Amino acid sequence: MADDMAGQVGDAEQLRARLGPDLVLTGEAVLPYCRDWHGDVQGQALAVLRPRSTSEAQDCMRAAAALKLRVVPQGGNTGLVLGALPEDGAAEVVISLERMTRIRSLDADNFSAVVEAGAVLEQVMAAAEAEGLFFPLTLGAQGSCRIGGNVSTNAGGVNVLRYGMTRELVLGLEVVLPDGQLFEGLSLLRKDNRGIDLKQLFIGAEGTLGLVTAVALKLLPRPEQVATALVALDGLEEVIALYRQARRDCCDLMSAFEFMPPLAIELACEAMPDLRPPLDAAHPAYALIEISGSGLVDIDDLMTRFLEGALMSGLARDGVVAQSRAQAAGLWAIREGMNLGQAMRGRHLRTDVSVPLSRLATFVAEAEAAVAAELPGCTCVSYGHVGDGNVHLNVLPDYGLGPDMIVPQILKAKKIVNEVLDRHAGSISAEHGIGRLKKPEFEARLPPVQRELLTRIKTALDPAGMMNPGCQMDHPAEAAHHAPLAEN
Amino acid sequence: MADDMAGQVGDAEQLRARLGPDLVLTGEAVLPYCRDWHGDVQGQALAVLRPRSTSEAQDCMRAAAALKLRVVPQGGNTGLVLGALPEDGAAEVVISLERMTRIRSLDADNFSAVVEAGAVLEQVMAAAEAEGLFFPLTLGAQGSCRIGGNVSTNAGGVNVLRYGMTRELVLGLEVVLPDGQLFEGLSLLRKDNRGIDLKQLFIGAEGTLGLVTAVALKLLPRPEQVATALVALDGLEEVIALYRQARRDCCDLMSAFEFMPPLAIELACEAMPDLRPPLDAAHPAYALIEISGSGLVDIDDLMTRFLEGALMSGLARDGVVAQSRAQAAGLWAIREGMNLGQAMRGRHLRTDVSVPLSRLATFVAEAEAAVAAELPGCTCVSYGHVGDGNVHLNVLPDYGLGPDMIVPQILKAKKIVNEVLDRHAGSISAEHGIGRLKKPEFEARLPPVQRELLTRIKTALDPAGMMNPGCQMDHPAEAAHHAPLAEN
Repeated sequence: MADDMAGQVGDAEQLRARLGPDLVLTGEAVLPYCRDWHGDVQGQALAVLRPRSTSEAQDCMRAAAALKLRVVPQGGNTGLVLGALPEDGAAEVVISLERMTRIRSLDADNFSAVVEAGAVLEQVMAAAEAEGLFFPLTLGAQGSCRIGGNVSTNAGGVNVLRYGMTRELVLGLEVVLPDGQLFEGLSLLRKDNRGIDLKQLFIGAEGTLGLVTAVALKLLPRPEQVATALVALDGLEEVIALYRQARRDCCDLMSAFEFMPPLAIELACEAMPDLRPPLDAAHPAYALIEISGSGLVDIDDLMTRFLEGALMSGLARDGVVAQSRAQAAGLWAIREGMNLGQAMRGRHLRTDVSVPLSRLATFVAEAEAAVAAELPGCTCVSYGHVGDGNVHLNVLPDYGLGPDMIVPQILKAKKIVNEVLDRHAGSISAEHGIGRLKKPEFEARLPPVQRELLTRIKTALDPAGMMNPGCQMDHPAEAAHHAPLAEN
Repeated sequence: MADDMAGQVGDAEQLRARLGPDLVLTGEAVLPYCRDWHGDVQGQALAVLRPRSTSEAQDCMRAAAALKLRVVPQGGNTGLVLGALPEDGAAEVVISLERMTRIRSLDADNFSAVVEAGAVLEQVMAAAEAEGLFFPLTLGAQGSCRIGGNVSTNAGGVNVLRYGMTRELVLGLEVVLPDGQLFEGLSLLRKDNRGIDLKQLFIGAEGTLGLVTAVALKLLPRPEQVATALVALDGLEEVIALYRQARRDCCDLMSAFEFMPPLAIELACEAMPDLRPPLDAAHPAYALIEISGSGLVDIDDLMTRFLEGALMSGLARDGVVAQSRAQAAGLWAIREGMNLGQAMRGRHLRTDVSVPLSRLATFVAEAEAAVAAELPGCTCVSYGHVGDGNVHLNVLPDYGLGPDMIVPQILKAKKIVNEVLDRHAGSISAEHGIGRLKKPEFEARLPPVQRELLTRIKTALDPAGMMNPGCQMDHPAEAAHHAPLAEN
């Protein structure tokens, strides 16, 4: 124990000696970097390294490697699966990108920007908007998540339907490799077919293969017109039918198509007592639809005619189109308030699963029925992104249950949902990633050939098992990495 | 020599013994598989293996591995960079996917299909169309290229602007690995964020990491309305300005935006004497524009209003919107006829380069000026996909030059164009891939860190250097792979 402490102090001092004191946080200062977004889990780290430039990031990586320390890359620390959580206070350092926040360049004529990995998503959105452009990644944490984290987790959000996951918005990457070398791949080309596309490996790798320090991003024309509607329907089957109709009728100009159960409106009203939803909670299902565009297509007219058609055909029971930005914000407030309302009801199971769209309604019906049969006191709240087949099938435990009873109920509910999911060839992580939280579920479902390929790639790019140990998968090399250090 | 021949016969017989005679072609029958699309290059191979199923493809791979033979995967053999060309008649076998052509499934409700790698692109397009859907990959070779080749080369085409390269149309892959194991990744999920996305490695790898045997594809609603226009402008700068305007005005509903020089019309008329272009060849530049969609947006009206705006503002000099399918086909015939016309003028330099869109006009002006200065008798034909920054800057040698003079002139023109390209951080291959043809240019520009990463990945996935040797890059393992065989 005393030896361990001495080793830690020694490592921390060596980091300071190598990098200068300004780059190295230790002691109490590291704690906020070791806590997850929900505040549920507290990890620990030897130090937090905070480079201000790519070359300092390379220095940090080399220093960690020289001391045989493991590295946990961290952006805004807003992830939902503990992907940036250091666990070992003796052997792990966090490299935080929070001081690398520059927009290095923005080329409006090329519809592109190069930004450092620590730039906050909202800052990137604003920089694009200032040039009449648009960066479409849109998610709840956009005020604090950072682009490097978005890339490393291949973040999704409400606009995936139209613009794809983060992967589809990345033109190029700059990555510090575990040995400190720099992968300089900040291409601005829209089309470049020179063989194997190395950057794809780092997107979604959650920092297990390298440290993303800058990103070249695609930008788009800013949609000047946005039309938002809330529609009431007879059930999820009808919501899916409406989605298919909308794809054809609206020329794939939908930027969001979310479904919600009636409970969503109830939960939103619990969380936001001032909320006045334009439709009551008496219908079996709701769709929140956004169409957007610029220029010569009249988006409001398109939405109105689409909705008229849906009402005339009987597919929609009721519907309302927002007549102002404020009304549109009011409709989105239901979607956001629903999340708050769930949180206010206490700990619950949150899932982030996906199935083929043709199985979505069946999956939700079967999973909700299975939960009702085995956990009759629980309440399911299933909502999500229809077009992507991505549903957050959440389960609220028995109201008023003691804390010691809640966790077993949540674990049981998760098991029930996953069993149904497996029957429908679904994914346990549609958009949140694997991290440390979903590693057991991920590894349990990993076919041997995939496991072998992932191990070979990890070994090829990070032979010492230095990057983000314990994230996504356990690798043999990680166990061997850290040995107690002799002072040298 | 006699020993070599004996070895070949022995290998061929062993392949037949292991796989049965129906799967193995040898002798004269292999020649068509060893000739490139243009018929310019004749390679050689020991045998062609033609599996009818995934398990037979695994058998073929295992047989090749057991005999220490190298494998060149081949689809429709329509590639433009010699990526599927076997070179060594003693040590290489082609595995042709031409007998694996099934559409395994098509799920209209999920907008997806699973097809075998040997399915011809046009067959896939037709299968989608029969269900009211659309597979958007569109290119000259669509009647003979095969989906596995499209995936392995990450094929582009005229619709990349709207729908992306093949990479963006792939949901999942089935790949036979060099050791015969099967990577089963035929996912039908639109959104699946379970860590590192292994399938990305095989897309664009040109068969150097494994043999793609089946593909899960994204489908889209079929665009019921298509509007096509030909516009005359003052130069490439104006074409690019019109493109930017079109992105905003037309809500990114453009499915093609091609530019052509006046010579394009001249060349097309040479090749197709019956062609009656609606605009004469007197303008400095032309844009061929296609907008498409379905449902409630009036696409013809959108195109008409867009073009009226461009004429009113003075950006466009003249323009015509096709009033029928036949007229639209007539406009596209100029684009296709231009290629024929170039071929009729004899051997010439074909390039497939890209630069950031903001540099496209400058790049073309500088490269054409450099060619004019150093090769005054040559003629440049620059055309391509504006929105992608992808230009085919071709150079026709001096008219009437002897064959021994043409090749040096082509090589010199290539050097001149590449020098300008390098100054603008461009790509030597925007959509055609690397293959064997562009390997020297590719390797000469490959930064050491990228080379090292590519070598590590190749070694990790194909440690024996068995897959498509000499394609894209030279790898140390390839040299060691084949040793003359003793009969065993």
